[in-house]
Amino acid sequence: MAGVLERIRKPNDIKNIRETEYGQLAAEIREFLIGHVSRTGGHLASNLGVVELTIALHLVLDFPKDKLVWDVGHQCYVHKLLTGRGEGFQTLRQYGGMSGFPKRRESNTDLFDTGHSSTSISEACGLVKARELSGGKEKIFAVIGDGALTGGLAYEGLNNAGQLKSNLVIILNDNKMSISENVGGMASYLGKIRTSNKYVDLKDDVTNTLEKIPKIGTKLVRQIRRSKESLKKLVIPGGYFEEMNITYIGPIDGHNVNQMYEAFLAAARKNGTVLVHVITKKGKGYDCAEHNPKQFHGVGAFDIETGKSLSKKQEQTYTDVFSSTLLELAGKYRNVVAITAAMPGGTGLSLFQERYPKRFFDVGIAEEHAVSFAAGLAAGGFHPVFAVYSTFLQRAYDQILHDVCINQFPVIFAVDRAGIVGNDGETHQGVYDLSYLSHIPGLTVMAPKNEWELRVMLEFCISYPGPAAIRYPRGMACRKFETFLEPVVFGVCEWLLKEGELVLLAVGSMVETAWQAAKLLEQEGIKTAVVNVRFISPVDEKMLEQALRYQMVATLEENVRRGGFGEHVACWLAEHGYKGDFVDICLPDQFIEHGSPDQLKNAYGLEAKQVAVRLKEKMQN
Amino acid sequence: MAGVLERIRKPNDIKNIRETEYGQLAAEIREFLIGHVSRTGGHLASNLGVVELTIALHLVLDFPKDKLVWDVGHQCYVHKLLTGRGEGFQTLRQYGGMSGFPKRRESNTDLFDTGHSSTSISEACGLVKARELSGGKEKIFAVIGDGALTGGLAYEGLNNAGQLKSNLVIILNDNKMSISENVGGMASYLGKIRTSNKYVDLKDDVTNTLEKIPKIGTKLVRQIRRSKESLKKLVIPGGYFEEMNITYIGPIDGHNVNQMYEAFLAAARKNGTVLVHVITKKGKGYDCAEHNPKQFHGVGAFDIETGKSLSKKQEQTYTDVFSSTLLELAGKYRNVVAITAAMPGGTGLSLFQERYPKRFFDVGIAEEHAVSFAAGLAAGGFHPVFAVYSTFLQRAYDQILHDVCINQFPVIFAVDRAGIVGNDGETHQGVYDLSYLSHIPGLTVMAPKNEWELRVMLEFCISYPGPAAIRYPRGMACRKFETFLEPVVFGVCEWLLKEGELVLLAVGSMVETAWQAAKLLEQEGIKTAVVNVRFISPVDEKMLEQALRYQMVATLEENVRRGGFGEHVACWLAEHGYKGDFVDICLPDQFIEHGSPDQLKNAYGLEAKQVAVRLKEKMQN
Repeated sequence: MAGVLERIRKPNDIKNIRETEYGQLAAEIREFLIGHVSRTGGHLASNLGVVELTIALHLVLDFPKDKLVWDVGHQCYVHKLLTGRGEGFQTLRQYGGMSGFPKRRESNTDLFDTGHSSTSISEACGLVKARELSGGKEKIFAVIGDGALTGGLAYEGLNNAGQLKSNLVIILNDNKMSISENVGGMASYLGKIRTSNKYVDLKDDVTNTLEKIPKIGTKLVRQIRRSKESLKKLVIPGGYFEEMNITYIGPIDGHNVNQMYEAFLAAARKNGTVLVHVITKKGKGYDCAEHNPKQFHGVGAFDIETGKSLSKKQEQTYTDVFSSTLLELAGKYRNVVAITAAMPGGTGLSLFQERYPKRFFDVGIAEEHAVSFAAGLAAGGFHPVFAVYSTFLQRAYDQILHDVCINQFPVIFAVDRAGIVGNDGETHQGVYDLSYLSHIPGLTVMAPKNEWELRVMLEFCISYPGPAAIRYPRGMACRKFETFLEPVVFGVCEWLLKEGELVLLAVGSMVETAWQAAKLLEQEGIKTAVVNVRFISPVDEKMLEQALRYQMVATLEENVRRGGFGEHVACWLAEHGYKGDFVDICLPDQFIEHGSPDQLKNAYGLEAKQVAVRLKEKMQN
Repeated sequence: MAGVLERIRKPNDIKNIRETEYGQLAAEIREFLIGHVSRTGGHLASNLGVVELTIALHLVLDFPKDKLVWDVGHQCYVHKLLTGRGEGFQTLRQYGGMSGFPKRRESNTDLFDTGHSSTSISEACGLVKARELSGGKEKIFAVIGDGALTGGLAYEGLNNAGQLKSNLVIILNDNKMSISENVGGMASYLGKIRTSNKYVDLKDDVTNTLEKIPKIGTKLVRQIRRSKESLKKLVIPGGYFEEMNITYIGPIDGHNVNQMYEAFLAAARKNGTVLVHVITKKGKGYDCAEHNPKQFHGVGAFDIETGKSLSKKQEQTYTDVFSSTLLELAGKYRNVVAITAAMPGGTGLSLFQERYPKRFFDVGIAEEHAVSFAAGLAAGGFHPVFAVYSTFLQRAYDQILHDVCINQFPVIFAVDRAGIVGNDGETHQGVYDLSYLSHIPGLTVMAPKNEWELRVMLEFCISYPGPAAIRYPRGMACRKFETFLEPVVFGVCEWLLKEGELVLLAVGSMVETAWQAAKLLEQEGIKTAVVNVRFISPVDEKMLEQALRYQMVATLEENVRRGGFGEHVACWLAEHGYKGDFVDICLPDQFIEHGSPDQLKNAYGLEAKQVAVRLKEKMQN
């Protein structure tokens, strides 16, 4: 009886699987996923949750004619399996291997490379309008999680989807979670639907079932019909969506393939936008993940029996340092409050949440709101700390500039996962923040060289009366440089080595690289000064004045070149008559693929050895 | 009987005005506004629409204890009047004069400097949480227009407001318009409420009035109560908001002070978030504006009798050039489609909308959706053009990077109002786009020297298979340089003058400035080469190689320094061994206040004469 999954080698092969085999197929998929992800790491719980949902979608849709748009995309593993990419799981998220997200270059059934949240409805609206203009007949389905539905972009998408004349099917994959428990009015609304309604029983067309809803008799229905208010609003739980001209179907059991199949077909037959509300269980079918879906949202290698991580106990990460320091500061300063956009765990705010629940705010996947909300808290006399990944803060660029910085509010941006992030690839690299933050007037931008400095910078920010961002990388916190304890002063760098023919001005994580490169150069007889720049904006002009005296200046940063620290320094030096050599060591202006940070640093020449070689060559030219 | 307004010299003075005088007060305010704005220009229609609303707010709120948060803020003129800033209208929006938007430095009743849309609910949520933490008792009111409610940030705000335990009052100022007619599911929902319900008659507390709603008898109410569904959803029109845990009151006549006063007081007494839906008429009380609210949204000086503009017929603007060119291209290329975020008029898309209604999309104030939607259209085989102001495109930074550029979709960003914009001030200047766009990998960024070049660049973009942005300034299109007709080739600049000791690399609007400066320098005996760079990203490296030969290189751009074109050039030159002088002519890294573009260019040294003087001095050093 084994080997149903084996028979699926390419898109649409699933249509040859017998209905009686769906259960077996789902079980094999789960086994496959758990087996592979336990070895490679990856997104597990969300994928276990959408096994039947993805099967149903693949039964209804004809690839590549029909279009399936994933939101975020971390839940696309089953889709990858069902489109013949099982082999790829050997190298999942590894350098040169298969991506953990939808990728157009992998398959024509992946329509958008994604990784950020709440985009699928808008993208699908575009596909629908394109179909209308081209006169096509393809089905267009967007899948979005209830977590992603807290993002404003999803609402903008719904608001526009409500105007569509031809069909769009939105599958709301409701598992009550983003990475953590979902929050907000929408989440509580979905909760009400879940608890107050049994699953809809779909015979054929949903609209005919209205009068059969229990507890509200035909007589009542007739009476209400006479009133001006829409009938549907009363008897269908999806009033919220119906108000926006979106037909609501649900809730549907997201682990019942046949029920979903019927609902999806019915939904695809209607004009306009139809939202099918599907209830799934994150981690379904694997006890450890069902009981701890947060931990199994994204995991490293683990033991299948126990669910325990196989990686050695990691040393203290920058996130840990941020976490414990903020907790301390919150004890000292009553006006410190903390904000997360649906990532209390990842950003290290869980402890804060526990200790200071009233001063902690999880706003859901809503980075824009997080920042404008922080502006409001600051206007009310508080000092908010928004802890967020570099890549997700991108979404709040306008709010940082408009709501916070024009008003010069003291808001602290704790920008985690800055620089190369690794296995999540192009959509998650934090290699733009120096460019999108440093040019915002009045925003102080900092980066610490080690764990001690992150602590001190955070403390500095609390006493600083304007907006400030601290960027720090993913992973282990640097514990070197224990003797370099120069107090953090606004706009002032720290000299680590003063003597030299050349000087290295290094940002954050690159201070260690610069130091190592300097040591290597010393072995070659080239004396090298090293500066920990600390302040990327405003830059320490005294530091730059001193840099003028060196034969060569090099800047080092984990950021793309354009708009980065290096360009700023080069321009200042040029305007101030510097005639020596200049080297900008940074990432190229291109999207950085997935792979381990070490592999990627090597690929882009950011290793200390590579840096030393490059500088030596330049010195000798 | 004249002179009610005169008696209001400072916040709260309005509380001494007798109820019988409110009508007179409203009339005087309208006369004042029409009189002043007809001379200075400014936002008129929206302010005429909120006269009674602002009076009612000022009667209910005790300033500065209570907090009033405006959305966008262009409708704050009445508020400025009622807080004693009547004198300021003499210099409204003029350099050194009173701002046309809320400004913290003007009054402690202005809590946030604003100008962008959809921020008020989030900001007010922050104030509410701050009040809860501080144990305060102040009232907190946010005003938001129905147009702003199409923005995702407003939804993120509502989603979080639904969780508040203490009171927040949101006034929905519904005039059926953003600048143009409002769009989307939410707009049609509000429309349904407006047409199906008479104004609510508020005696004391709104919640008691439910059973009195006409057409739905007590018996029905009782029956429904037995069902699990909420009663309110059926009998109150605000089901949408109620689903998100927000109490809905309305609709209320927004020109009836007493009715609003009662409603606002009732709303402020409830726990949690209350939305009061107020219906106003844009342009109310001034015929010309009532009949043409779009024209009178923002106006220059005009004749009060006829409503006609007093400014001379303006020469062709860049927006006009974009408008007519796109129309032409749309005729030639069937895959060209156009998108606006609620600004068909301002961006020049009205003609396109008229001629190609099916290929035109107004998505409402929803720049993020606009970009992700464009990605979808591109994935479906079309070539979307998103016409948008530089300052508003800020909101879609993440979508440009994540949805469009990672996927390398051919989406054209027609970035209008780039550079110094003028009278709207800090929140509207388009002086960051070179910084926030140029570092996005794979995004081509261009700027035309004159109207001909904008045409040619647009045509170039249509044939270019990747994402591209063209930035052009507000106002009159440059018609000089008629003999410089070098075809636009990807990544290639245009040399205007080759000979010289120094070379000026100029971006877009600054090409004319560079040319004039070169002429002035020539008179001083300094021969100067001038380049129209055309491509800010990717920069023409051949051009840079040639620049290496000059004694001095200067870059000119209407953008802040950091992350701009100049820094990029300086860095390239430095890395390529340039030993000459370098000058970066640009705006400083600070927020640029309101004033006419000419005044501001003078203030920041961007006039040709100033540029010439600066370059000459540098040459002589």
